[in-house]
Order: sequence, then structure tokens, then C-alpha cells
Amino acid sequence: MTVETISENLCFGGVQGVYRHSSALLGCDMTFSVYLPPAAAAGSVPVLWWLSGLTCTQENFTTKAGAQRYAAECGIAVICPDTSPRGSDHPGEHESYDFGSGAGFYLDATAAPWSANYRMYSYVTAELPEAVYARFPMDRSRQSISGHSMGGHGALTIGMRNPETYRSVSAFSPIVAPMQVPWGRKAFAGYLGTDETAWRRYDACALIADDGYDRPLLVEQGLADNFLTEQLRPELLEAACKSAGVPLTINRRAGYDHSYYFIASFIGEHIVWHAERLKS
Amino acid sequence: MTVETISENLCFGGVQGVYRHSSALLGCDMTFSVYLPPAAAAGSVPVLWWLSGLTCTQENFTTKAGAQRYAAECGIAVICPDTSPRGSDHPGEHESYDFGSGAGFYLDATAAPWSANYRMYSYVTAELPEAVYARFPMDRSRQSISGHSMGGHGALTIGMRNPETYRSVSAFSPIVAPMQVPWGRKAFAGYLGTDETAWRRYDACALIADDGYDRPLLVEQGLADNFLTEQLRPELLEAACKSAGVPLTINRRAGYDHSYYFIASFIGEHIVWHAERLKS
Repeated sequence: MTVETISENLCFGGVQGVYRHSSALLGCDMTFSVYLPPAAAAGSVPVLWWLSGLTCTQENFTTKAGAQRYAAECGIAVICPDTSPRGSDHPGEHESYDFGSGAGFYLDATAAPWSANYRMYSYVTAELPEAVYARFPMDRSRQSISGHSMGGHGALTIGMRNPETYRSVSAFSPIVAPMQVPWGRKAFAGYLGTDETAWRRYDACALIADDGYDRPLLVEQGLADNFLTEQLRPELLEAACKSAGVPLTINRRAGYDHSYYFIASFIGEHIVWHAERLKS
Repeated sequence: MTVETISENLCFGGVQGVYRHSSALLGCDMTFSVYLPPAAAAGSVPVLWWLSGLTCTQENFTTKAGAQRYAAECGIAVICPDTSPRGSDHPGEHESYDFGSGAGFYLDATAAPWSANYRMYSYVTAELPEAVYARFPMDRSRQSISGHSMGGHGALTIGMRNPETYRSVSAFSPIVAPMQVPWGRKAFAGYLGTDETAWRRYDACALIADDGYDRPLLVEQGLADNFLTEQLRPELLEAACKSAGVPLTINRRAGYDHSYYFIASFIGEHIVWHAERLKS
């Protein structure tokens, strides 16, 4: 699988790259970014996956979060995928900010027409890793995952379903219970159809109730977040973790909102937290 | 003068704001950003002015440079103006990336039609400060200035011409000798007319030859910068400073380019450098 270089820029002594490859799974070209810390010059480095939120591409986190400084200090690579397939034209694909392009919800769609190519779960967990690990000096035995909003949902569900792959899981402003909030119900009905039993594998709170999880979870949540009470509802994750005995830390941050200014303010703490787990 | 709030986001414990005001000098509404560090809650803070480069608005540095972390740590406010008047329609104003809108070159134009409103030198040194200091808790006796590329030219010329206002001056990838390079000659001919003696007040190297400067200058320059040899030519600043006995430090950074990834990598060092001078 060929990976084409779009740009590479030196940043904090490492290389911030943007790349493109042809995804057979998604039926389109996909863009992603990789930050390689200076330590990658001397050998394989651990990896943090970052999943972005609604309307984003790989670019938002790459240019706005300021993660490179911390990744450089900790000697960790950061991979940012795009948030959906691009370039197909299913009816309604480009009409809403919360469904279709830019809103893949990190699941494998089973309802037509989305089932043809909206397969972000498999893309992030299988196809993209193959492309990335074939090209970059990374240690795939040491991976962690984080993300923001819809990407926080992606990080929680992908991370908890694959504990052998992802050593640690954190999230910023995540959708923790998509089955119980408007964003999630719209997306799951469209991508997965009406049988809600199938939705549970993509709902962090349902996964915890069904399977548990035996490692710490770290969640960052701004209390001035416009989506807090309707879409995010961290108290549902808190209740699910309490019932199942999952060690959860939610840092509720007074005054912080849903923006990248919030992510930038605390991404360093998350990277250090993941680094401790990736290097132990 | 009314300052309208476009957005305010908490960031590293301070407030990153974007504002708009009506500029009588430029004949249009102008947008600018202000980062107020947490220390501003307890009283007036020193100020770093940041001038951006060709094609930029106030947004690029604000969202991409990651300066807030360092400004928060050092207790310094950061003000980012836009790079030109907006919304006029002089012939040719929007046709080039290096002249007209997005390319004000921090001078007061004297050639028609630009002389009507392309007055970024007076805007940055007089009108915008009045608007900002009337609203925010800043100590105008403690100001410094920096910038990138065209904004590095702006910082050097504005800073050196007004040593009573700006305690320290630094620049990233600056145009140091606009009279000797294509970007500058095009801009100066268009904005200032053909009499090159008038150009010298806007050329850092000429200013140093004419007036000298008695404080240290700090310049950051990537050696993989595409504009290095044709437009930036830091060796001309080095020669001018050497002749005039101006203490100049140029940090030449192997592998770094002209991008915000370069700025992000070293903006912390510049903010600390300015903070030492602002707080002494």
C-alpha cells in the first residue's frame, strides 16, 4: 500500500507529516497526519492515536492542538486519521455536519448505502495501521488512543474493545452514550439501522455495562462546553464506570469550552499520562 | 472607540479573545486577537505585539503558534493585528498574495490610491493601542514586539523606530532588507512611490545604517526556508548590525522551514526572552 507524502515540516525537532493513501476499505483516497518525535531517529517509538470530532479532518488537531511539543518531549508518535470517507456521494452525505462526510462515528456501517464504504472502525483499527506501520519506525506493541467529542467516543469504544492493542484510553469532551443523545441516535439509526442491540458495540456506556474494562480511563471535560448537557453527558459514563468498577477520572474544567483552545490547554497532561503507560 | 467581542475562549487559564473595531484610520472594520494570561486577573500585564506575514490574518498565529502556554507562564498578553485594511476595492488590491489585502507591510502608504487607507504603521503604533489599552488590563509602559516574515519586517522597523515604546524586538524569518528583495521592492514601489529615499524608514537594514539601535535583536531563521536566499537574506541584517555595532543574535535552525511549525517550535524561547526584558 503506497503512502504518498503531502507535506513534511520539522517541528520541535521531529517531523510533522501529512500523507495520503488509497483505502480499499473506504473506496477513496484518505489523508492522515503523523508526528514523529526526535526519538524516532534512533528507533521505534510508541504511538498515540488521535481521533477528531465532527466536521474535522486530520488537520485540525495537527495544526491547532500544539501536541508536538509534548510528543517530542515524551518520545511518542501521534497519528491523526480523517473522520470519514471522502469523495463518495451518497444521498444526504454532505448535508449535515453531524452525519455523512466529516461524521463517520468510527463505526462499520451496516445500513445501505453507508455499508458500502463507511467503515471507519475497521479503517482505524486495521487498514490504516497496516499502512502506517509499514512506513514509519513505530512500535505497534505500544499503542494508546485518545480523541475529541465524536473522536472521544471513537477512542473510548475502539480502545475498550481492543485492550490487547491499546494500552491506555483517554478522551476530551467525549460522546459517552451515543444511544442516549441526539448526535448518536441520528448517526446510529442512519449507519446501523433500527435494531438497537447492534448499537451497543459502539456505545461506551453500553460496552462498560456489557463487558467492563479493567484499566483507568481519563476524561477531560470543559464545564462551559455548549454540548455538555445534551450531547456529552459525562455523568452517564461516571455512573456506568461506578456500576462496573471501572477506574475513571473525569477532570471537569470550569470555564473551558468545546474548542481546540481547551484541547491545547490539557493535551500535554494526556500525552504524559499515556506516555507513562506506553513506557512501563 | 467600541471594541466588539467576536469570541472568547479559556486557554491555559487565560482568555484568548478575538475582537473587532471600526478603524477610522483604515476606513474599515478590523479584527484582532488578544490573549490575556491568568495574571491579568490580578492587574495589568506586559504586552507582546505579534505581526503576521503575507496572506495571514490575526487568526494564523492565534490558532497555530501555541503561544498561549508560554504567555500564560510568563504572565504576558499577546496582541495580534490583521495584516492590512479589509474591504476596500482598489484596483489590483486582491490580485496578488504579496501586495494589497493581506500584505500591508506595516507602512503608511503615500502613493495613490493606497495612501487613502493603507496605513498599517500608524494603525499598529497608534490607533489599535488606544483601542486595546482602553479595554484590557495591560501595562503600556511594558511593550515588546515580534513577528513573522513580512511581520518580522514590521516588528524590526516599528520596534527600532520606537525604542521608547517597545523594550525589545525579535523576529522569525523576517524580511530584513525590503529595498533589496523582490517582495519589498514591489510593495514599496506600490505603496510609497519611486523615491527610494522615502523607503529607508521602512527598511530594517537601512534604519540600522541611518540611526543605529542600542539594544539586542533576536532573530530566528530556518535554513530550509524556501524564501531564505531570495526574500529574507539574514546575512544583510548581520552585516548591517556588525557595521553599526548592534548586538544581534540570529539562531539559524537547520531543517526548519517558513511554516507555523517552525514558529511553534521556538516561540516559547522568544516569549521568555521578551519577558526577561519586560519584567526587568
